[in-house]
Amino acid sequence: MVGLVIRVWGIILSDTISYDSLRGATAADVRKAIRSGAYSKHTAGLAAGKLQCNLAILPEAYALDFLRFCQRNPKPCPVVGVSETGSPYVPTLGSEIDIRTDVPQYRVYRDGVLAEELDDISDIWRDDLVTIALGCSFTFENALIEAGINIRHIEQNRTVPMYSSSLELVPAGPFHGTMVVTMRPIPYDRVADALKISAAYPQAHGAPVASGDPAAIGIANLNAPEWGEPVEVRAGELPLYWACGVTPQNVLLDAKLPFVITHKPGCMLIADVGERDELSNHTSLTSVQQGDYHYA
Amino acid sequence: MVGLVIRVWGIILSDTISYDSLRGATAADVRKAIRSGAYSKHTAGLAAGKLQCNLAILPEAYALDFLRFCQRNPKPCPVVGVSETGSPYVPTLGSEIDIRTDVPQYRVYRDGVLAEELDDISDIWRDDLVTIALGCSFTFENALIEAGINIRHIEQNRTVPMYSSSLELVPAGPFHGTMVVTMRPIPYDRVADALKISAAYPQAHGAPVASGDPAAIGIANLNAPEWGEPVEVRAGELPLYWACGVTPQNVLLDAKLPFVITHKPGCMLIADVGERDELSNHTSLTSVQQGDYHYA
Repeated sequence: MVGLVIRVWGIILSDTISYDSLRGATAADVRKAIRSGAYSKHTAGLAAGKLQCNLAILPEAYALDFLRFCQRNPKPCPVVGVSETGSPYVPTLGSEIDIRTDVPQYRVYRDGVLAEELDDISDIWRDDLVTIALGCSFTFENALIEAGINIRHIEQNRTVPMYSSSLELVPAGPFHGTMVVTMRPIPYDRVADALKISAAYPQAHGAPVASGDPAAIGIANLNAPEWGEPVEVRAGELPLYWACGVTPQNVLLDAKLPFVITHKPGCMLIADVGERDELSNHTSLTSVQQGDYHYA
Repeated sequence: MVGLVIRVWGIILSDTISYDSLRGATAADVRKAIRSGAYSKHTAGLAAGKLQCNLAILPEAYALDFLRFCQRNPKPCPVVGVSETGSPYVPTLGSEIDIRTDVPQYRVYRDGVLAEELDDISDIWRDDLVTIALGCSFTFENALIEAGINIRHIEQNRTVPMYSSSLELVPAGPFHGTMVVTMRPIPYDRVADALKISAAYPQAHGAPVASGDPAAIGIANLNAPEWGEPVEVRAGELPLYWACGVTPQNVLLDAKLPFVITHKPGCMLIADVGERDELSNHTSLTSVQQGDYHYA
């Protein structure tokens, strides 16, 4: 389907629009393209600086147990937002977001089986649905790169390698399983920095959960990731493993809920808040200006 | 009531036991004293190094909204644990904790009014209750002191001053209100350190939410805190304000739930985990040993 793209002062009218033409576009323009159905592919590298999220949209009856599960497994499941029941808005992600339309590609599961892939869930929306948004690791990757730590899969334009592991999750209600991890090889002399930098992003999975020998965490073959693509680990580098957002997706599947909506891997929700913003009404004081109040 | 204390290798048998005799006691011994009813007073300074928590014990029907409220207001309401419905155990706080007996003094509210103060809630326990444990600021105070930043209320053996403020909370369900804050005066040349150190403890309220002029956040008189005791702010010092755990207590009160249990201020739950432990099954990698796995 070839579409004619007419760009009018921030308005994109098109049947389809390519990834390349959205590179460098503002978050608002990317969202318009997704919302209109003109763009329904992956989001890595788009709307740079905006928080991207994994999503779990599930009936309210399961929401309390899923929040317990996330609280007990904060590394793979860092909660960045929770909607009211039946509402397509998530307060901490910005008022411009509509959960029913703003994800490029949704996946609808019924009883643990993939039933539909849609680019808009307005027609199947229910008033008992709760949306739980979870952070993802794009954020700390940017911070590592800024610190001069090369990220091989980004450099080689591949999807990060993701592996099933033997790391047990703490269960809650119907939710249980083992952790999916990402792997990034880091030079030995930058490992301490990588640990420290990623630890500062708990909403993006935080610090690694393991390092070194893949067999120690139940990974049979680093060259055969279950998701994504393998990258080389060179001499002088240590594999570091971080908790991955595929974990909650798998857990939701395995719970065989009657109805749950997630999304195609890589096709994230682009939120309307900065990826380094505090998701709080009351942001932290990070510095004090000269001439600030002197208590008399 | 005078009790005769017989200390037998970790077992304390007594009608009542004084705060002073518990100073320096192990967490296990303090918990035994609380659980037996022998000690029902404040917990600041006891079981040094163990995480102390604020508690909200409420009917499951309100738990989802309260967790939403905490997620939207993470500074005053940092969640450190959530129980299963009807269970007195909180997985992330250690298996030795029994919520029904391990808090020195409980407060039971019915329809927003204080109905009872008890040292044991086993008799009124219900199978629809969910316990949500929240962190408190004792943790970052220890870190500030270790960094050589004097905490005046601790030095003077007073309760930290706490104030109602005009800072609005983000609502969820029946939960809404304004933030209660603590105030600690910090020398100007240590303010940057105080911000950085406390920011590292999001489970203990994190970095300050404001500084300087109390009127800017709706505080009329620094010498008249609504809770705790005033401390002097000297020349060369800046008042810093942190979110306070009295906030969720007030919010629960104002919501006028049919039934909710909290606790007397200062009489915290002493958890069985270290105050600086990660509350996660999968702790962060913080360093890599020499001779760690070399990928061949």
